[in-house]
Amino acid sequence: MRQIGIGIAGFGTIGVGVYKHLVGNRRLLEERLGLELTVKKIADLDITRPRTPMPPAELFTTDWHDLINDPEVQIVVELMGGVKIPYQFVMAALEAGKIVVTANKALLAEHGKEIFAVAAEKRIPVFFEAAAAGGVPIIKALKEAFVANHIRSMHGIINGTSNYILTRMTQAGLGFEQALAEAQAAGYAEADPTLDINGWDAAHKAIILASLAYGFWVDGKDIHVEGIQNVTATDIQFAQKLGYKIKLLAVIKSDESCTENCPIEVRVHPTLVPESHVLASVNGVFNAIAVHGDVVGETLFYGRGAGQDATASAVISDLAEAAVALETPRPNFGFVPHGLYGSCTPIEEVVTPYYMRLAVIDRPGVLALITGILSEESIGISSVIQPEAHEEETVPLVLMLHAAPQGRMNRATEKIAALECVKRPPQVLRVESFA
Amino acid sequence: MRQIGIGIAGFGTIGVGVYKHLVGNRRLLEERLGLELTVKKIADLDITRPRTPMPPAELFTTDWHDLINDPEVQIVVELMGGVKIPYQFVMAALEAGKIVVTANKALLAEHGKEIFAVAAEKRIPVFFEAAAAGGVPIIKALKEAFVANHIRSMHGIINGTSNYILTRMTQAGLGFEQALAEAQAAGYAEADPTLDINGWDAAHKAIILASLAYGFWVDGKDIHVEGIQNVTATDIQFAQKLGYKIKLLAVIKSDESCTENCPIEVRVHPTLVPESHVLASVNGVFNAIAVHGDVVGETLFYGRGAGQDATASAVISDLAEAAVALETPRPNFGFVPHGLYGSCTPIEEVVTPYYMRLAVIDRPGVLALITGILSEESIGISSVIQPEAHEEETVPLVLMLHAAPQGRMNRATEKIAALECVKRPPQVLRVESFA
Repeated sequence: MRQIGIGIAGFGTIGVGVYKHLVGNRRLLEERLGLELTVKKIADLDITRPRTPMPPAELFTTDWHDLINDPEVQIVVELMGGVKIPYQFVMAALEAGKIVVTANKALLAEHGKEIFAVAAEKRIPVFFEAAAAGGVPIIKALKEAFVANHIRSMHGIINGTSNYILTRMTQAGLGFEQALAEAQAAGYAEADPTLDINGWDAAHKAIILASLAYGFWVDGKDIHVEGIQNVTATDIQFAQKLGYKIKLLAVIKSDESCTENCPIEVRVHPTLVPESHVLASVNGVFNAIAVHGDVVGETLFYGRGAGQDATASAVISDLAEAAVALETPRPNFGFVPHGLYGSCTPIEEVVTPYYMRLAVIDRPGVLALITGILSEESIGISSVIQPEAHEEETVPLVLMLHAAPQGRMNRATEKIAALECVKRPPQVLRVESFA
Repeated sequence: MRQIGIGIAGFGTIGVGVYKHLVGNRRLLEERLGLELTVKKIADLDITRPRTPMPPAELFTTDWHDLINDPEVQIVVELMGGVKIPYQFVMAALEAGKIVVTANKALLAEHGKEIFAVAAEKRIPVFFEAAAAGGVPIIKALKEAFVANHIRSMHGIINGTSNYILTRMTQAGLGFEQALAEAQAAGYAEADPTLDINGWDAAHKAIILASLAYGFWVDGKDIHVEGIQNVTATDIQFAQKLGYKIKLLAVIKSDESCTENCPIEVRVHPTLVPESHVLASVNGVFNAIAVHGDVVGETLFYGRGAGQDATASAVISDLAEAAVALETPRPNFGFVPHGLYGSCTPIEEVVTPYYMRLAVIDRPGVLALITGILSEESIGISSVIQPEAHEEETVPLVLMLHAAPQGRMNRATEKIAALECVKRPPQVLRVESFA
């Protein structure tokens, strides 16, 4: 049986998982592929820390250049973390003619354009199934299964940490800080959870998904990103009363009525999702992505978006495809530009319904002032809740607002925030209607 | 741009859908593939009936041999229906060196073994994404995305017609005949709905999925198949009271504790699914398949399992892959045998919990007789419902039973049916615990 030599760069949780399952399911893989996937070299700065399973000491090196320079390494797996060194490593691997597999969403979101340009020029594929939603094969679905489809929309829960925190806030009534501490204790959040909490981990994945679907490499500075750090238990309770769950949603959308060079929406933010929609039931660390194609209609993919095993499953599927590509090169090198579209809608022009929660002084005329401002900006109100529960000197006031462009909504929010009767900054969340 | 010549055999609903979207999304496909997919010939017995869109008359032929003999046709799409003629056609196409795409589940379930043997021998791939669950890319997931996984189980709702009927019985309280008539009127059931209703359409798909997952071609005579024709509105109501939805489920399972040459379970039958499981929420004509892999964990795929557009989406993704395979042949010819397993568990040895509904004479001692028989067969009872509603001279008695092998359950059911106090044949349905 022909041996395929693999080099692993970065031997943390995911790297160990890939090694573990390549060894553990070796026989199955060999039977299915007719090839032997053999790890030839492992680069990591820490080569003495014990791992389970522990590879033979002679595989280890502390210098990633050793993978590039080893003629027995035909495929490299980049699992280093960070962006700068991985970028150098991937570019050097492509220059050396080695197929690249990476799980690094930040790397692709920031440097995908350059990486795939070199991949196409050198005719060396780059695989990245693990970079978008761990064990959920959404990259393959977009690249291959839905090749005949214009993608109308994608709605994704693609950050497990945020979803775990929001789920615990919803189900156990925890506050944000408490739920975050629990996620960290359970190993679902990093010691530094910044990228999970501020929406940028999901945004990196959204950039990759949008780029694949629409054929141009989406720039991070053209998209809108908000995290969950300002969502309160109070918002979650009001949302539930109104029939919604709050989820950190990545929304990628094209305008159905537009046929040529249409801008797309790419945004990540906490969102009110109707309880009847299946995404409202995706709980804990699970990921799910609803994809609407113009031919296939509504579809949904669900599974573990992170973790050692699910991510390893995706990396090994890429290794299998890379091994096949070694034998019989394919004309697709990872990302195919197709210039039907080519820009992102500015967030000011994006239209959604809204949830607005205010803390107001409890006195006559307040509601009239606020609705007056909304009316000036032509923003309709679909319902108002003013519960009896008092928060010291203020009362909460929740307004569900009809769809309006973000720009108008921002102006209205600013004016409302400036009212003397409105205490504390208004909480404004978008509502997804899935129309 | 290089042209790839396609021949379509069978130009009914699906064939027209494939043609329509190849033409309608031509530009997108060309940009994504760098190839032009061009329909060169269409074979159908009826070449005069108008279709939308209507291909040029010169493409049509009534003789499928014209596709095989046309050197410009490089890929054939088999959408004929039936088994005998499609089998002749596919074998002739492989002999002639043409790549085959088929959506024909009955063909593969009955002749998959022979077809893939010839495909491997000739090194000509056969693609069949549309044969299992329409627009849901489950074939690609099993063959490629989950290549590193031993599949622990698959639970699928893979017959849209049955699911539509059961959904209508559940949501609108319709009887079976009434719901079937409605499905036919809505175009969701054929004039002859036999294969949908008796479970065999789902069984054909289950055979394909099980064969891919476990690496040996599953024989239809080794699996257990029951349809939905005996499910009553009464059963659906009792199931709901107990916290279950009744679904026609395809269950494919291996024994986790077994490591070598383990028999697998393949069965299709109406099943009580706990309401909390996501499959219980899959309604109408939608399909969903939950796949549990030993590496990736729990996943789920959801979408339209039938219909012109969703099926065309799957066929065109196969065409795209076939076109790529023409340029750069791949070592995988559609089905890879991998002999880790190799037999199906006889249904008598399959262990599940059960729901049993009896019509009994309302008199003392009846419950004692019945529980005595269950006790003889060591079948435990988890709950009993004996509602007050009378049906003429009998009362309904519903028992939820603990997991037991089908063989013992059959013996108990026979003895219970023979009791003088039991009127009408017992209704016995399996319960899926998803443990």
